[in-house]
Amino acid sequence: MAERIGTYTLKFTERPSIIGNAAVVGKTEGEGPLKDYFDRIFEDDTLGQKSFEKAESALQMEAVTLALQKAKKKPEDMQYILGGDLLNQCIGTSFALRDLKIPFLGLYGACSTMALSLGLAGILTDSKAANLVIAETSSHFCSAERQFRLPLEYGGQRTPTAQRTATAAGASIVSAEHVPQRPCLEAVTFGRIQDLGIKDANNMGAAMAPAAAETIANFLNDTKTLPSDYDLILTGDLGKVGTELLQELLLKDYHIDIKDRHNDCGLLLFDCEAQDVHAGGSGCGCAASVFNSYIMQKLLKGELSKVLLVATGALMSPTSSLQGESIPGIAHAVLVSKPDIVQ
Amino acid sequence: MAERIGTYTLKFTERPSIIGNAAVVGKTEGEGPLKDYFDRIFEDDTLGQKSFEKAESALQMEAVTLALQKAKKKPEDMQYILGGDLLNQCIGTSFALRDLKIPFLGLYGACSTMALSLGLAGILTDSKAANLVIAETSSHFCSAERQFRLPLEYGGQRTPTAQRTATAAGASIVSAEHVPQRPCLEAVTFGRIQDLGIKDANNMGAAMAPAAAETIANFLNDTKTLPSDYDLILTGDLGKVGTELLQELLLKDYHIDIKDRHNDCGLLLFDCEAQDVHAGGSGCGCAASVFNSYIMQKLLKGELSKVLLVATGALMSPTSSLQGESIPGIAHAVLVSKPDIVQ
Repeated sequence: MAERIGTYTLKFTERPSIIGNAAVVGKTEGEGPLKDYFDRIFEDDTLGQKSFEKAESALQMEAVTLALQKAKKKPEDMQYILGGDLLNQCIGTSFALRDLKIPFLGLYGACSTMALSLGLAGILTDSKAANLVIAETSSHFCSAERQFRLPLEYGGQRTPTAQRTATAAGASIVSAEHVPQRPCLEAVTFGRIQDLGIKDANNMGAAMAPAAAETIANFLNDTKTLPSDYDLILTGDLGKVGTELLQELLLKDYHIDIKDRHNDCGLLLFDCEAQDVHAGGSGCGCAASVFNSYIMQKLLKGELSKVLLVATGALMSPTSSLQGESIPGIAHAVLVSKPDIVQ
Repeated sequence: MAERIGTYTLKFTERPSIIGNAAVVGKTEGEGPLKDYFDRIFEDDTLGQKSFEKAESALQMEAVTLALQKAKKKPEDMQYILGGDLLNQCIGTSFALRDLKIPFLGLYGACSTMALSLGLAGILTDSKAANLVIAETSSHFCSAERQFRLPLEYGGQRTPTAQRTATAAGASIVSAEHVPQRPCLEAVTFGRIQDLGIKDANNMGAAMAPAAAETIANFLNDTKTLPSDYDLILTGDLGKVGTELLQELLLKDYHIDIKDRHNDCGLLLFDCEAQDVHAGGSGCGCAASVFNSYIMQKLLKGELSKVLLVATGALMSPTSSLQGESIPGIAHAVLVSKPDIVQ
């Protein structure tokens, strides 16, 4: 049963295990530094579908299907599936999951969705409300680009602070039963909306950094721990700009130095210089694919012991930006630890 | 602690109470049959805001603020707020809640959001993961109309099967502590996505009816109860067309007759003929405002004992419709009962 520690954090006393996980990506992501860690790389970003939206659904379905296979489970074994995406009305998710026939809890956390779904999956399993739950999400460069920015055909210039939406999906199968050979969920800190007035939709790292700073500070404060108690504090997709801001904000406002423990999924997914992706990766699929490939494999091997995944989301829309609104940010943190028995 | 009964249903053993609730609506809703039950009616649908999207945020904030006041609680007493809306990237919600500083779990369930948020609030409180949680949602006729259909200025004709998106918001404060003088949550059945191939976005009742039928059948089957065990089975917003289809589907496919126990929020909110709203009300705010006004007051007075709220959602977007896709539907059911001590 989840136990509240401090003001914002829930500790999972049963330590639910991630018994299966998968990450699938597009061509560019599959040419990046993590290429050897993904379950599948699609050379054709359309995945043979007639639209980029349908391609995103296919990508998400592939991640869920592979995660189920790797956990040796079937859809009917699952009590719930928790997911969402960036597309209007989350159609990437609803059309992906239509045929799965698993009770569906739709989420919207923008790029924070992997931590939001994983944290809720932790609560559902830890409280025995469910035995098995899927937490998952996706994003697609082409569907996001035309929805949030410009049609691809326009060939618009990207600013140096802009990030590239990952064509990627990730899924984790969370089990109420603690399996000592698998990584497990230890705690969750859900974040509060932060808005310091950033209005530039090409600088989302800056908009999300204050939310990440607060959530990390709340987690460390609630758990009475230090950054050095963790192998890695892994933000979702702050990219280059947001990463610098986060480290600065934490030092200035909270006197917390995370520099030697911090990395960002948006910086891990791409080689920013060589791949010309400017400030790094973004999108729900960024944290989802990095966590469900590289990070999970490092945990499984015992090369990482304790990872605080802090996925971040920018809760704006093109409409709110056109109406002159700033960008509210959010960040949710999930503590994941290596298996009790590393094999 | 939530206890699983049957395949799809969770029973709340601690029976979390709804200690505060509020419903606020726009002018047309405030002229309808439920006008005496709302906490506030806004004569001006802009709420003095510069855009309809901002008006929707203001409406949602008003519902949350009033619900907190009525529960005699402050935002800082709340562990979580669960909400979402119909707007792209759920900006109605994120901009409404920005200043509340409550950890935020964003949901997307289209018009099923009230039951989705209430069901999750039930799990969070029943499992003691939280003491106090807000479940809430909103919709706005003008922001929805221009996003999903046509600009208002165009004056497009509406088909007879079309429903009117409610300008309305509703919020419930759910407490882990069972308060005998307040209505309480007894159980939740989260639904699976159903898609029988309806493609007409002006006939969403038909698209959602199969999902409602399955969720109601699953709930009754899991709980081994009959429709006559409940005072009211209240669907979200199937409207005239969907209501007929639901009753027919339940009879034909599941041999369940709900006719004398069933009503629909979309039919309760408006006088369809006199108010010229065609097939009835829809939108996240429809179920949210009807439940948090009329239904909660009937429960409080003991005039209703057991109500199964089955909010329904159509998980499409204008993009998926343009791409020739059908409309996936979903329905979540929450069982709410009258106070132990009716005053």
